Amino acid sequence: MRVSRRSAVDPFIVMDVMESARKAEAAGRHIIHMEVGQPSTGAPQAALDRLARDMAEGPLGYTVALGMPELRSRIAQHYGEWYDVDLNPDRVVVTAGASGAFLLAFTALFDTGDRVGLGAPCYPSYRQILRSFDINAVDIPTIYDAKFQPVPADVAQYDLKGLIVASPANPTGTMLGRSELKSLSDACNAHDTSLISDEIYHGLDYGTPAVTAVSVTDDVYVVNSFSKYFSMTGWRVGWMVVPEDHVRVVERIAQNQFICPSHAAQRLALYSMDCREELQSNVDVYAANRKAMIEGLPKAGFSVFAPPDGAFYVYADVSAYTDDSLSFAAEILDQAGVAVTPGLDFDGADGHKWIRFSYARAHEDILEGLRRLTEFMAQRTT
Amino acid sequence: MRVSRRSAVDPFIVMDVMESARKAEAAGRHIIHMEVGQPSTGAPQAALDRLARDMAEGPLGYTVALGMPELRSRIAQHYGEWYDVDLNPDRVVVTAGASGAFLLAFTALFDTGDRVGLGAPCYPSYRQILRSFDINAVDIPTIYDAKFQPVPADVAQYDLKGLIVASPANPTGTMLGRSELKSLSDACNAHDTSLISDEIYHGLDYGTPAVTAVSVTDDVYVVNSFSKYFSMTGWRVGWMVVPEDHVRVVERIAQNQFICPSHAAQRLALYSMDCREELQSNVDVYAANRKAMIEGLPKAGFSVFAPPDGAFYVYADVSAYTDDSLSFAAEILDQAGVAVTPGLDFDGADGHKWIRFSYARAHEDILEGLRRLTEFMAQRTT
Repeated sequence: MRVSRRSAVDPFIVMDVMESARKAEAAGRHIIHMEVGQPSTGAPQAALDRLARDMAEGPLGYTVALGMPELRSRIAQHYGEWYDVDLNPDRVVVTAGASGAFLLAFTALFDTGDRVGLGAPCYPSYRQILRSFDINAVDIPTIYDAKFQPVPADVAQYDLKGLIVASPANPTGTMLGRSELKSLSDACNAHDTSLISDEIYHGLDYGTPAVTAVSVTDDVYVVNSFSKYFSMTGWRVGWMVVPEDHVRVVERIAQNQFICPSHAAQRLALYSMDCREELQSNVDVYAANRKAMIEGLPKAGFSVFAPPDGAFYVYADVSAYTDDSLSFAAEILDQAGVAVTPGLDFDGADGHKWIRFSYARAHEDILEGLRRLTEFMAQRTT
Repeated sequence: MRVSRRSAVDPFIVMDVMESARKAEAAGRHIIHMEVGQPSTGAPQAALDRLARDMAEGPLGYTVALGMPELRSRIAQHYGEWYDVDLNPDRVVVTAGASGAFLLAFTALFDTGDRVGLGAPCYPSYRQILRSFDINAVDIPTIYDAKFQPVPADVAQYDLKGLIVASPANPTGTMLGRSELKSLSDACNAHDTSLISDEIYHGLDYGTPAVTAVSVTDDVYVVNSFSKYFSMTGWRVGWMVVPEDHVRVVERIAQNQFICPSHAAQRLALYSMDCREELQSNVDVYAANRKAMIEGLPKAGFSVFAPPDGAFYVYADVSAYTDDSLSFAAEILDQAGVAVTPGLDFDGADGHKWIRFSYARAHEDILEGLRRLTEFMAQRTT
């Protein structure tokens, strides 16, 4: 049986790292996980308890395609609470994770061959999903001084039908401020370019709150998720905010591509939004981890990294030590027992000079990881 | 903001029927639901209990993209138990419902502009998902004598890159026997056409067991689901069986398009597979409903319908009464208080002459529905 051309997407390299780490653990080694982009915590306990009661009460059948009305309203309310934005709940679309949101957004916005810009480095699946839809993913090189984010001039220069930005970003953790988001949005509007703002790490910021693109423009698809701040990765539920006149378009696609997001996950998401205390205690751990990383990584020898404004990542320049981040990551796993992600997942051009550290795990694990990295680098450079 | 051309998919008409029924109920009317393609039962109780315990024990984070190894093995074992087929668990891919399976299959198999055949009438989302991927959905007219299924000659006649068959089928309930499936598979192989076999209604058969395409060829994508027999619609979990040399291709797409199916749903699916007694009691209700429908519909005036071999549908010819099944369905809802689905969802060419009755609900509801339909038709024709 033939496979399609569009199926030729790249694998997630981090998945191979995870598999190597799993094998090392199966062989009896103790591994510190700084590769995985997911919390070690689960969904909030009170929310899980409420869902368990619902499960005992009756069938959780299909919901409507756009998601439970109560959840859409609650998400709209969240925009008031967090961003002081008055959002029409009709504009909220509940999705099967941010992944499902990207499938819907790309279907709704782009045709075969359209050019869609991504600031490199970025989340690898943007590129691969676009390819799988026969849409032309255009890597935009970025620089340290622009926080590794696209700049307004890129929109016209690369002649884009669409632009995807992320703040806080993966892998860099950098954030776009209000004026930067506004300038990018203006450039997109001037060029009739559809803007997609990936905001899945909102809530994981440290001092400076993340800005939502909805606060600077209505002409945007905002993608968010219950996986990170709400700590619900495996439940696969997220949301989008779309322009009012796109809701019906997205609804028709969602009816056909998904029927609906998981009903149980939608209820859990709704209940999780009232568990701010437990969620804040998770953020407190990340904040302590981040502080330890910012202090500890330079001591270990990783002193050049992107400003880690948000999310739970540090993207570090390792070009002083290697021009092959893939084998460098393998060496760190093998010698130090710390799993890290090579930059190649995020940036095909420059990723061989970078690695990503995740600090999403428990604080003692992060401290132990830093201790091992320091020891490894001391031995390696002497 | 511009929308794409590929976003111009049709809405699900049944969703509009459901909305009209909901409004009637909100206005205080009692409606019998013969429109919905989902069980009124929930997931098996023992499986829900086990999942609730898992939820209390620890985070349900991401699984690997192809699904939990235990679940893939259990599904492979199921092919031995049900079909006497020895299936390599590596060929099993757990998906976000059959919907997720179609997204993966179409990405893996077809390119922009490829011609993919569908026997009309059929499940409407095949057509719409194909369109949303810029793939050319080709409706193949079918006839009563061929059980409204495609025939081998169609493959060459319509010059197909792919063919989707369903057995038991939606909306007709008809099934393909072993020799029919083998002939279709042979025709596909001879023409280098990729065969997709939708088997989501397996287990819902009455006397004659459904045949899996895996028992006649390895060159096939089989799509199945935990929504129907396993009664887990809202959990959004299903599976595919793919050729061995396609597993890695599908894995890469799944990593990027989905990350993984819902972890909780995967566990619930695994546990449900051991709940045969409760699941069989659901099937017993459908069997009684089907008997009542086969006896009662002709008495009401609906005497021409496709052989309802499996699933929980009867697809009835209403051309003696109307050439507008959409308004006829609206009339039935309004006058009789019974929600039914017009054939237009399934067949743009002939669907105006057909309606689909679902008998997935409780037995007393089905009896009451038949009573109302009989009374309605008696008044209408006198």
